[in-house]
Amino acid sequence: MSKGLCVVLVEDSYETVEFHYPRLRLEEAGYTVKAVGPQAKKVYQSKEGYWGTSDAVFSDINPAEVKALVAEALPECNKLVHDAAEAGAVVGFICHGAWVPISAKVVKGKKVTSHPAVQDDLVNAGAEWVDEPCVVDGKLVSAQLPKDLPAFMKAILNLLE
Amino acid sequence: MSKGLCVVLVEDSYETVEFHYPRLRLEEAGYTVKAVGPQAKKVYQSKEGYWGTSDAVFSDINPAEVKALVAEALPECNKLVHDAAEAGAVVGFICHGAWVPISAKVVKGKKVTSHPAVQDDLVNAGAEWVDEPCVVDGKLVSAQLPKDLPAFMKAILNLLE
Repeated sequence: MSKGLCVVLVEDSYETVEFHYPRLRLEEAGYTVKAVGPQAKKVYQSKEGYWGTSDAVFSDINPAEVKALVAEALPECNKLVHDAAEAGAVVGFICHGAWVPISAKVVKGKKVTSHPAVQDDLVNAGAEWVDEPCVVDGKLVSAQLPKDLPAFMKAILNLLE
Repeated sequence: MSKGLCVVLVEDSYETVEFHYPRLRLEEAGYTVKAVGPQAKKVYQSKEGYWGTSDAVFSDINPAEVKALVAEALPECNKLVHDAAEAGAVVGFICHGAWVPISAKVVKGKKVTSHPAVQDDLVNAGAEWVDEPCVVDGKLVSAQLPKDLPAFMKAILNLLE
């Protein structure tokens, strides 16, 4: 019995472990997980050439059904991320994934972190950037690097359960 | 406060997600996780060239301190795996990782699974091979493919906690 729908974004050149850890971890926790990208049923390749298969495109997903959404890659998903956040989904982003919620306009006034390279973009978008491995503000969860995945997923699951 | 020591084996050409998912998942669950390989403080590369850094060599680890050991790669670790299993550690292996516990002589008489390519080697070693995604026999946990990682880690954590 699934606990509900979670979405993990995927596109070419995704970060291998930042995609697969959340995907597998949410499934382990009992959620139905869909990898969502610009095309459905496509095998995307990570930076190192590891597979990552999409289950659906952005428009296939009803934002109101999304319990949690994890943005690692950089797809054209602004509407889905924005609408899922508005509908109350937990939204997580790690590393350079921060560019997704910036464009989806869900970081203004929020305390967040990211890979340091994205710090200025978050500040310019109106967020408060802090240098911590993992930051939670409301239902927005952000983290810096692959090593922070355990704290990142623990925070997301804490908000879900 | 760490719940204890877990060991994940690593060597060149490791399977990217079968190493990193258990490593990060055990850390998320509160364990101290050491990646152990033929050399310490070495960056090993997965089949796709993703990094995997070893923290220690096999002989650095006291088998009696190991709560769980996950074998994915194929290092010269027979003594550690054998002694940790004898000392009561949970021993997990996935995919072609089955070759490790075969050589460590801990599968005889046990019900196990693996990547189908390793089925005959397990049977020749005296194990009962079954075609299921994840199998638990005592403290031995085995699984077939990366897609089975959620069930694999859930089974390992169930035995630990």
